[in-house]
This record gives sequence, structure tokens and C-alpha cells, in this order.
Amino acid sequence: MSEKKPLPTPAEVEAMLLRGPYHQWLGIKVIAVGEGTIELKATWREEWVVNPDRRYTHGGILAALVDLTADWALVSSTGRGVPTIDMRVDYHRAAMPGDLTCKGKVVRAGGQFSVAEASVFDGDGKLCASGRGVYLTAPPAPPKA
Amino acid sequence: MSEKKPLPTPAEVEAMLLRGPYHQWLGIKVIAVGEGTIELKATWREEWVVNPDRRYTHGGILAALVDLTADWALVSSTGRGVPTIDMRVDYHRAAMPGDLTCKGKVVRAGGQFSVAEASVFDGDGKLCASGRGVYLTAPPAPPKA
Amino acid sequence: MSEKKPLPTPAEVEAMLLRGPYHQWLGIKVIAVGEGTIELKATWREEWVVNPDRRYTHGGILAALVDLTADWALVSSTGRGVPTIDMRVDYHRAAMPGDLTCKGKVVRAGGQFSVAEASVFDGDGKLCASGRGVYLTAPPAPPKA
Amino acid sequence: MSEKKPLPTPAEVEAMLLRGPYHQWLGIKVIAVGEGTIELKATWREEWVVNPDRRYTHGGILAALVDLTADWALVSSTGRGVPTIDMRVDYHRAAMPGDLTCKGKVVRAGGQFSVAEASVFDGDGKLCASGRGVYLTAPPAPPKA
Repeated sequence: MSEKKPLPTPAEVEAMLLRGPYHQWLGIKVIAVGEGTIELKATWREEWVVNPDRRYTHGGILAALVDLTADWALVSSTGRGVPTIDMRVDYHRAAMPGDLTCKGKVVRAGGQFSVAEASVFDGDGKLCASGRGVYLTAPPAPPKA
Repeated sequence: MSEKKPLPTPAEVEAMLLRGPYHQWLGIKVIAVGEGTIELKATWREEWVVNPDRRYTHGGILAALVDLTADWALVSSTGRGVPTIDMRVDYHRAAMPGDLTCKGKVVRAGGQFSVAEASVFDGDGKLCASGRGVYLTAPPAPPKA
Repeated sequence: MSEKKPLPTPAEVEAMLLRGPYHQWLGIKVIAVGEGTIELKATWREEWVVNPDRRYTHGGILAALVDLTADWALVSSTGRGVPTIDMRVDYHRAAMPGDLTCKGKVVRAGGQFSVAEASVFDGDGKLCASGRGVYLTAPPAPPKA
Repeated sequence: MSEKKPLPTPAEVEAMLLRGPYHQWLGIKVIAVGEGTIELKATWREEWVVNPDRRYTHGGILAALVDLTADWALVSSTGRGVPTIDMRVDYHRAAMPGDLTCKGKVVRAGGQFSVAEASVFDGDGKLCASGRGVYLTAPPAPPKA
């Protein structure tokens, strides 16, 4: 808290994030990293579809995006991904085939646990889902620890 | 409510469920269907991993399983999958590589919306995640409508 | 949606709100009403305390404030209080004796149900709790219906 | 974990609980205490009403009951009330004037935090609300610490 760490760059955060196979599968790209904020993109794939007739994206994909975006919104203080204690997602609108933009923001950064929120937007900038997670946050460890 | 429909068989529910590409990707198998209950299995795949060092499953996979299991626990009254309004997941234990067993149960079936819960267990029968969703339920439609 | 209703005044909203005995007991005062936003105050009372030694406010009071503030953030479109489908609260900091300020904002206003969020601040402007609710929203009815 | 503590009696838990002014105001009576379970009653009062015409109970009262019942379901391992990290409530049915019965159950007791759930029933035994909380649990401290 007392000494300010430099913000990691989007490329640095993306490299950490893409160590995870599920993040690779979701085609995550890190667009911007700020103090307690993050912006990501997820790359659409056919397997995301839940209903082959109407072709919208499964809620579990949106839930994963809310979880990981809120988690990584904490990266400016945690320096890494942290375990999720619990999370909640509200579904606002069907997400049709196409890449998704995810914006995360820290609600409160704490010593033991922290709360962050995230919103998922479709290609037209319409809000498809939003939610929050509680994360287990400990003193920042080196990125690969 | 007044007239009892016959329960769909596990094979019938699995056929409906597997129309969805994401359900295929998750390797969903329907084990048992009861009045307001369901038991599923999900088939592990390498892409589920979030952390390549510790190899546990991404919380977004567990969230998807909670969502879809609670949703399909309603199938004995809905006759189909229904839209999720919102959902919440609590994470209890890291899910290591291996198939997962998911048990769902209706908390309250309503006319406009319904609440159902689900738990996800690892191969040793240990509880990894549990949660709930609120679902938009309308008069049952034919399975493929 | 198509025709814009004039915003109700804080005094009008407070009069509706204070018809409810529990709102009276919470000492609710409406400070400001905007398009999809509201600001309230709640008046501290000794019965709010959960722990007689440390004297902080019971989480159930903060939960009630999150619920009602999010609900009434919808008043610019609903024209009344509406039923809560579900709600969630994150606790950030102990709320010590003193009045609380509550700010609500609509996340998404829908035809059948809507999502709104609220934050509760103590006298020093520190965030004590925040959360969200899903509300059953139907075409606006006259205030006293 | 290793050595089994004797279960506190309902009278002992009620005495701890009623040290809190808000618990007194809610008229809490402890009916039964088990290993990871609790049953309480709350005593109806006029101030609970949200809508003077239809006279049902405010959702914030039900939220408080879910929170405190889930919290005290942990008492067999914690020996005391513990801080709530977050909680969620689903509303199933209007709670009309009358005492309420609350049943709580531990979902998972952990070292750092624990999850417990609770259900609130009206005088006819109908489910009015249910939900869950995540609680900050540390090694048990003496009851009055």
C-alpha cells in the first residue's frame, strides 16, 4: 500500500493470463490495464453456443469472463491471478456470435479478500452480463510464484 | 401443476442438452433425472486448466456446471433448458484434473421464475463448488421449440 | 419507454417510501432522485447494533439498505417500489454508530425484471457495503395501487 | 478439527445471540443446535411491514434472518458469531404477519472462511426466503472475547 508499484503493461498481464489453458481457449487479449481496472477481449468460438437454433453464447462462458475479468482487475495490486471465493453474474441480454469486450473494476481491495466487478459487452457495445467476485488476496507475490 | 407429466428419461434429457455445442464441449452425460432433481457428469479436458503449474480447473468451468445443472434440475417441470436470470457460485476446493459429478435440485418452482441449486463433486466425491441460479420459467414448450 | 415521464421529486418518493413501517423505522430520507439513480439517508438507531462491545451495525440493516436503495433507484421508471427477486450484499467495512448514506443506480431496466445496485457509506464517506438486486418490474402502476 | 468440542446448548447460543440489540429487536429464540445446524424463531413485529396495504414483511428482515441463521449455523465450530463477507437471498413468497422459523446449515466449514445456508419459513411451514453467506472463520475464540 505504502510504496507504489509500477502498473504492469497489457502485454505483461496477457502473458501471465495466457499461461492458463482455459484463458487461451477463450482467446483472451488484454487491451488496457489501469489502477484497479482492466479491459479484455474474448475471441468468439463456435463451441460457446448453447442453443444451435438461436446461436447465443452459453451463460457459463459469460460467467467465466466476469470471474476472470474481475479477478484480473485486481492485478495492479496483486501482481497475479488470485483464487475466487465466490462470484455472481446477472444476465442482461443474449450474447450473439462475436468477440466480447470485458471491463473490470476493483470495488474494494482488502488485505485478506477483495471485491471486484466486471461487465461483458457485445460487438455493438451492449451490456450482456455483469457481476462480481470476492477474491482471496494476500500480499503480492512475484508473477510466477 | 395439476396434471403430472411423465419424467423425461436421462437419455431424452441428454439428447436435448447435447444439442448445445458448449454442452458437447463439456462432455455432459445425464446420469439420473428425478422430480426436480438431476445428476450429470462432465468429462475432463485439458483446456479446463487455469494454472499450468497446479493444474486445477478454471472457476468458469465450475460456474458453467452449476448454471447448467441447476437449470436442468428444472427439466421435470419445464421440459427444456430455460434462460438464466442470474447465478452465484461458491468455490470450496480446487477441482483437480478428472471428471466431475454435478447434482442439481429445485429450490422453488414458480410460474414466472424459479430457483434451483447445484453442487459439483470431484472423483473422490469431495464438494468443489456449489451455487444457485434464478431461471425464467414459462409454461413448458415442446422440447425442440 | 417511448414517452418520458417527469422525474418524481425526492419529497414524492420519500412519501411513498415512508408508507412502509420498516422504512419509517430505518429513518429513511430521500436526498436526490435522478434518471435511474437515487440517494437516501438512513437514521442511526441503537437497535441496529449487533455487537454491544464493538458497537457496529448488523449486516441485516446494511442488507435492507442495499435492497431498498437499489429497488427505489428504479423509481424513475417504475413509479413505485417493486418486489425483490433476489439480492446480494458484499460487506466492506464495519458501519459504526451514525447515519448512513445510500446511493443506488440502475444497471439494466427491463420489461419483466430489472437489475439495480446500491452502495452504503458511513458518515466519513467510507464504503461499508454494496450489492445488487434483481427486481420484478411491470408497467408502472399509480403510486398507491 | 481433531478434538470434538461439546455442542453448545440452545440456551447458551441464545444468550450469546441476544447480546446483540438487533437480535433482541428481531425477537430471536434458539430452538435447536446441532453439528453444523441451527433452528431459530423470530418474533413478528409491526415495524417489519413494508407495504401497509398488503402487510407483508420487508425483504431486509428476511435478509437479516438468512444472514444471522447461516452465521450461527457455524456456532458448533466457531463458538461465536463471525463476520459476514457476503450474502445472497432469494425471495420465494411474501412473508405475512407472524413469527418466522429459520433453519441454517453449514455448506462447508473452512479455516479462513466458511459457507452456510439458511431458509426462512412462515407459520404454515411455507418457504419464504432462502440464501447463503460466506463467513470469516478463524480458530474458535471464547464466547465473549
